[in-house]
Amino acid sequence: MNFFMPEIKLSTRKRTELIDITGQVKDAVAAAGVASGLCIVYVPHTTAGVTINEGADPAVRLDIAAHLDSLVPWNKNYRHLEGNAAAHIKATLAGCSVAILIEKGRLAVGTWQAIYFCEFDGPRPRRVSVRVIPGPPS
Amino acid sequence: MNFFMPEIKLSTRKRTELIDITGQVKDAVAAAGVASGLCIVYVPHTTAGVTINEGADPAVRLDIAAHLDSLVPWNKNYRHLEGNAAAHIKATLAGCSVAILIEKGRLAVGTWQAIYFCEFDGPRPRRVSVRVIPGPPS
Amino acid sequence: MNFFMPEIKLSTRKRTELIDITGQVKDAVAAAGVASGLCIVYVPHTTAGVTINEGADPAVRLDIAAHLDSLVPWNKNYRHLEGNAAAHIKATLAGCSVAILIEKGRLAVGTWQAIYFCEFDGPRPRRVSVRVIPGPPS
Repeated sequence: MNFFMPEIKLSTRKRTELIDITGQVKDAVAAAGVASGLCIVYVPHTTAGVTINEGADPAVRLDIAAHLDSLVPWNKNYRHLEGNAAAHIKATLAGCSVAILIEKGRLAVGTWQAIYFCEFDGPRPRRVSVRVIPGPPS
Repeated sequence: MNFFMPEIKLSTRKRTELIDITGQVKDAVAAAGVASGLCIVYVPHTTAGVTINEGADPAVRLDIAAHLDSLVPWNKNYRHLEGNAAAHIKATLAGCSVAILIEKGRLAVGTWQAIYFCEFDGPRPRRVSVRVIPGPPS
Repeated sequence: MNFFMPEIKLSTRKRTELIDITGQVKDAVAAAGVASGLCIVYVPHTTAGVTINEGADPAVRLDIAAHLDSLVPWNKNYRHLEGNAAAHIKATLAGCSVAILIEKGRLAVGTWQAIYFCEFDGPRPRRVSVRVIPGPPS
C-alpha cells in the first residue's frame, strides 16, 4: 500500500466551469492499493467546489454551471468588496468535499457519474486533495 | 461483525419526491455491528440525491421538493437534450453523499432528522449504497 | 490518543446567521491526537447546516446568509405549518455534514477556509458533533 497522495493540480480557463477530475481521482485510488473503504475529495478553496454528476453528455456540466450562475448573479449589491461574492455563495451551494465508496479496489461511482471540480471564480490555478481511508472488506 | 451491506432498492413514483430511507439505513448500521464510526450513504445516480431533514411532518419534504422545483424549472432552454437537465442540477444542489456518525452502535442522527432519498427524475427503480467505516470508541 | 469529543455548543442570535466554529473544530482535532485521517463535522438539527467558506472578510458570511434568504423566502404558501419551512429548505441546500482531512495532526483546511455553523431558524441553543476517524499516514 502506498498512501502518498499527490494533489490534483488544475488550471481553470473560465469564470464558471466544471472540470472532470474522475480519471485523476481513480488514479489516486488505484495508487493507494486499498481494497475497500472511503475516498474523500476535498477542495481547499473558497470560490470553488466539487460535485458528482453526469459525465457522458458535456451539455450537462454546462447547464449546471449556467443555472448556478442564474441563481447567484455576479453583480448585485453584495457586501464583500472583492467582487467575487457570487463565487463564494456558489461554493456553499456545491460544497467543498465529497465522500465516495471504494469497493474491490475501485471507486464505486455509478455508471454515469463523473467527479467535477467546480470553478466559480476562474481562471486560476487550483488544487484538489484526494485521500483514501481503508475500511473493512465489504 | 458483518460488513456485507445490501444496497437499498427503491421504486420512486413521482418526478420529484423525497423518500424516507432512515429505517433501512439504521438496519444496515445495526447489521454491521460497529460500535462507533462513520456511515456513508451514497447515491450512484446523476438525477437523484440524498439529504437529511425533518422526518416528523410529511409537509416538510413536500416543501423541499416543491421549492427545489421552483428554483430549477423543468422547462428552460437547457443544452442537455434528454429533457432532464433540471434533475441533474437539483442533484448537484442536494448532493449524492452524506456522512453520519455512529455512536454506541446506533446512527447518531438528531431527534428530528430523517434521511431522504431525493428523486428528481422519476418514477424509476433506484438504489442507494450504505457503508460503515469503524472508528475508535468515542 | 483521546477520542472523547465534546460537542460544540452554540447560542445563535439571529434568524439566519453563519457562525465561525473553526477554532472549536481545530481544538477537537488537536485533543484527539490523531496524526492523519478524517474529521467529520455533523449538525444534528433540521433547520441548520454546516458549510466551509471564506473566514477573512466577515462580509462573505453575511452575503451567503442574505443570498440564501433571497433564494428561499421566509413567507410563501408552504405546506409545513410551523412557519419555518424556509429554514428546512436552506438546511438541505447547505447540508448538515462535512468531511475534512487531517494531515500531520492538523485540520487540512485551505488558507482562507473557515468552518461555519449555519443557523436558519434562530435564535436558539444549538450543538455540533465533531468526530475524528484515524487514517493511515499520508
